[in-house]
Amino acid sequence: MACNSSENIGKPIRCKAAICRKAGEPLVIEEIEVDPPKAWEVRIKILLTSLCHTDVTIWKIDHVSAAKFPRIFGHEAVGVVESVGEHVKEVKEGDRVVPVFLANCEECRDCKSSKSNECSKFRKEFFSVMPRDGTSRFRDMNGETVHHTLCVSSFSEYTVVDVAHLVNISHYHLPPHEACLLSCGVSTGLGAAWKVADVEEGSTVAIFGLGAVGLAVAVGAKQRGATKIIGVDINHEKFEIGKRFGITDFVNPSTCEDKSVSEVINEMTDGGADYCFECIGLASLMAEAFNSSRNGWGKTVILGVEMHGSQVTLNPYLLSRGRTITGSMFGGLKPKSDIPLLANKYLDKEFSLEGFITHEVPFKDINKAFDYLHQGKSLRCIIKMDP
Amino acid sequence: MACNSSENIGKPIRCKAAICRKAGEPLVIEEIEVDPPKAWEVRIKILLTSLCHTDVTIWKIDHVSAAKFPRIFGHEAVGVVESVGEHVKEVKEGDRVVPVFLANCEECRDCKSSKSNECSKFRKEFFSVMPRDGTSRFRDMNGETVHHTLCVSSFSEYTVVDVAHLVNISHYHLPPHEACLLSCGVSTGLGAAWKVADVEEGSTVAIFGLGAVGLAVAVGAKQRGATKIIGVDINHEKFEIGKRFGITDFVNPSTCEDKSVSEVINEMTDGGADYCFECIGLASLMAEAFNSSRNGWGKTVILGVEMHGSQVTLNPYLLSRGRTITGSMFGGLKPKSDIPLLANKYLDKEFSLEGFITHEVPFKDINKAFDYLHQGKSLRCIIKMDP
Repeated sequence: MACNSSENIGKPIRCKAAICRKAGEPLVIEEIEVDPPKAWEVRIKILLTSLCHTDVTIWKIDHVSAAKFPRIFGHEAVGVVESVGEHVKEVKEGDRVVPVFLANCEECRDCKSSKSNECSKFRKEFFSVMPRDGTSRFRDMNGETVHHTLCVSSFSEYTVVDVAHLVNISHYHLPPHEACLLSCGVSTGLGAAWKVADVEEGSTVAIFGLGAVGLAVAVGAKQRGATKIIGVDINHEKFEIGKRFGITDFVNPSTCEDKSVSEVINEMTDGGADYCFECIGLASLMAEAFNSSRNGWGKTVILGVEMHGSQVTLNPYLLSRGRTITGSMFGGLKPKSDIPLLANKYLDKEFSLEGFITHEVPFKDINKAFDYLHQGKSLRCIIKMDP
Repeated sequence: MACNSSENIGKPIRCKAAICRKAGEPLVIEEIEVDPPKAWEVRIKILLTSLCHTDVTIWKIDHVSAAKFPRIFGHEAVGVVESVGEHVKEVKEGDRVVPVFLANCEECRDCKSSKSNECSKFRKEFFSVMPRDGTSRFRDMNGETVHHTLCVSSFSEYTVVDVAHLVNISHYHLPPHEACLLSCGVSTGLGAAWKVADVEEGSTVAIFGLGAVGLAVAVGAKQRGATKIIGVDINHEKFEIGKRFGITDFVNPSTCEDKSVSEVINEMTDGGADYCFECIGLASLMAEAFNSSRNGWGKTVILGVEMHGSQVTLNPYLLSRGRTITGSMFGGLKPKSDIPLLANKYLDKEFSLEGFITHEVPFKDINKAFDYLHQGKSLRCIIKMDP
């Protein structure tokens, strides 16, 4: 572990990181060197991190340009600023921050528009390196470059994040566990329900996939007064779990017999749900969600990242009948303005985060987090760094 | 031609109609009998009608349940009420009316919602018969039933229309030619730009297909202050024509060489148009329109009715980047409230309808209207009934 931080300012920090050397292989805790932050960058000491399904999706990929190894995963986290690079005024040493995979430069046309959360300044997809200069801040003990992931790489005691990917939450009395949850998956679900779909009182909702994101959609829909919130999952245990988050009805595709899920939902909702959410990442389910939406104003929101590179196939006649399909990263939220809003809503008890954290492991047992998620046992497994 | 209308109240009227006896065959002007209106129905004397592309699409279909022959086409028209059935209070004899293929009962959940124009009371697709009792009001001289089309059948001197499909425009000083235009295609384009897409000042627009609907989108986009309105059409003459309606730039897919249309539009708009409209009815073009929209807030609106029953194939990752695809019938407009609004906007000179009517033929030459549309020569050909 690094020594007192002030001694390290401007110097590399030696610390432990969970490195993935090959797609799909278990992570290995190794010593690495973390370079000091360059201009517009911030070096952070991670307090807590957790495993989001997108990491697992990228972890499995070995055939695209995003697949650079060795690399450090992790993009749900909360940390403390250790030091800042030139030009960084937004945060200072000691500030509590959440890093976010989505950039928010606050200067580009998209960041300035209320309609987008797709920062166009940093839209180039530097998944494996720092966004401004395209290099890495990590080296292993042999001097080999270790790649970043999604501009966060929180599975390390220290990481370097561009200030555009950082939200200062020092002024909010948000406990670290809740801050960690709001840094990705849970916010994605809440944002999708509130900002992308804009779920209304009395509406019907169908959620495909009851992981943390899907259940956060349920929390958001319930808070908005949706009266029927249908959960769709092949794991029947998810119904009992889902009830605690607002799920009122359940459809298990494996027990639908000769009907499709959309036929079942159309019957349950008298012609289709007002809002459908795909939270898995399967093109076939995205189409099924769209088919489960009603004519006139049915809106389908894609949150899952398609796992197999498949295309989604839709009946254009159903589009003509007034249906909409859309999607977003991070639930349409702008990290720097919307995470503080969510923090306030949470602190005002407008919604509960109870139940999302199902497991907690020390950093050394990080691979257990992968096992729990794979086995469908966990919603969120918090990975606690050594103090 | 029928005698003085008051003599015919409650009795069948004998008059001329253009009958299609087989898919794709020329229409034949024949004598028919038009029954008196039943409850909630209105018998109309047609003044002017015109040929919309949807009629041509249905005219070609001989393989679906919608294909009932013999039938009477025509759903863009303006007429005068000849007589009304029981319970009809909204219009009376002598009122000027436009029939609309889309029902608007004003009582159902959809009609009462500002978000839908898909009347759910009459959503069953009785394309070939009257919407309430599922029977026809037309008979040929051999006593054989002649079918309706899209609940209008305006290619007849007299037709019977359900009051839910009728808009009373007696209180508007709208000339009959303009009223005819606003009864379908032109309203569809205007509504798509204003209500479905909600085009904003300074935005970029791409319109696939520069027929009357596509050009009406251009008129609507121009009125909203769009700065770049790109027309896409394989007919190069459409660029000069399109300029009069607001088209500022043109892409001819057949001269794009090794680039796709979406690549060309992405270059022209620095990353994709804000709003894309498909006004042809080809699944491949719908996908291309979607691919031409920008991340963050790009919205694609499907107006064309897919001609071959094909599915539209989309890259779900582009949905996740904040793009939306939607569609509507009749440009998302509610006939009874929105046609009067459009009439007022037209009379207030907020937009022009100049140039949409390219041809006019007497009723006996109705097949020429099909020829003109097929040859790409006409936008709208007005078919004038005998006085």
